[in-house]
Amino acid sequence: MRDAFHDQLDTIFSDLGLICADVETAVRLATVALLTGDAEVAERVISADADIDRARERVEDNAFSLLSLQQPVAGDLRVVVAALRMVSELERMGDLSVHVAKIARLRVPNVAVPEEVRPTMSRMAMVAEDMVKRVGQIISERDVAAAIALGRDDEEMDNLRRASFAELLSEDWTYGVEAAVDVALLGRYYERIADHAVSVANRVVFVVTGERPHLTA
Amino acid sequence: MRDAFHDQLDTIFSDLGLICADVETAVRLATVALLTGDAEVAERVISADADIDRARERVEDNAFSLLSLQQPVAGDLRVVVAALRMVSELERMGDLSVHVAKIARLRVPNVAVPEEVRPTMSRMAMVAEDMVKRVGQIISERDVAAAIALGRDDEEMDNLRRASFAELLSEDWTYGVEAAVDVALLGRYYERIADHAVSVANRVVFVVTGERPHLTA
Repeated sequence: MRDAFHDQLDTIFSDLGLICADVETAVRLATVALLTGDAEVAERVISADADIDRARERVEDNAFSLLSLQQPVAGDLRVVVAALRMVSELERMGDLSVHVAKIARLRVPNVAVPEEVRPTMSRMAMVAEDMVKRVGQIISERDVAAAIALGRDDEEMDNLRRASFAELLSEDWTYGVEAAVDVALLGRYYERIADHAVSVANRVVFVVTGERPHLTA
Repeated sequence: MRDAFHDQLDTIFSDLGLICADVETAVRLATVALLTGDAEVAERVISADADIDRARERVEDNAFSLLSLQQPVAGDLRVVVAALRMVSELERMGDLSVHVAKIARLRVPNVAVPEEVRPTMSRMAMVAEDMVKRVGQIISERDVAAAIALGRDDEEMDNLRRASFAELLSEDWTYGVEAAVDVALLGRYYERIADHAVSVANRVVFVVTGERPHLTA
């Protein structure tokens, strides 16, 4: 039979899974706004961020109440603190999606990403979105193997970031400084989303195995 | 007479103050490396970051041991968790200083920041360094008034960031794409250092007053 502590912890982890789904939507729609120049979609990402912030507060309140009422020690205590850290990181991933959406909005009716570099940028966005989606499943299923696999895919993001820099610093770059700065910052935002995804996945490894994760973010 | 809980909490906060001093050094030296193109100084920032990471682990271990052994509830519990968050943010500020140092190192023997925009960039660096220094005092003295004042100075950073963008996007920009991307990313790193400084200061307000801080980072 489960005890009250583990029941409440399950509630917290199921809330983390729901927040992760909202973050996934934010990343996906921010990318749509970015690649199509759709201001209305960008606005939706920006205004939906308040829901993620509120959900984060709810998880925090539940975690504090769990700590206060159940007084967990040792491993159980560290699991609850890990959940507090995971929710901070998920909220931050939402903020980074808002940054992407704001660059998209700033360039409407144009598209911030020049056509020639759109393949690399949309690949970065796809990798980020896919990582967030997998983190959601990793949280729901406490899937250690999938969490460890996620860390490996972060390398693809690093490679894409390098490819993107090579594009905008090449002799052939004809889109000017503004587009280059947009692409550099967008690359940074997607890279940070991926970093946080890896970090959240590592915390799931810790929660399940008790092993201190190797943190990259 | 103080109890064991508050004695141990004092140790944690004094460690946070020491880490903040190390972060201040990191920001200062990263800026020196950036504005002089001194590779040796950049290397010092990069290699010293491991000390900040180790200090962070020590604070985390102390905080977990405090939570496990003293089982604080309500306000006391939230103070310990606030300390855990503060140490994460301080470590992140150290990482951002490393990012600055790495851009400096990448451009040696040149200087990453073109002469014309150096006044704005060095002002951003000065504001960031000053904010980190003040956060150190705010942590040591639990100075709520100074913490609230710090939040106001974050506006200067926002204004400098805008000024920096205006410089690199102006018609007169003659330094090419690489320098523009460097300046944009450097601006982002200093801005994030400042954001985290405000967030740490807000957590001190919470620790002293029990009021939930208004978080900007």
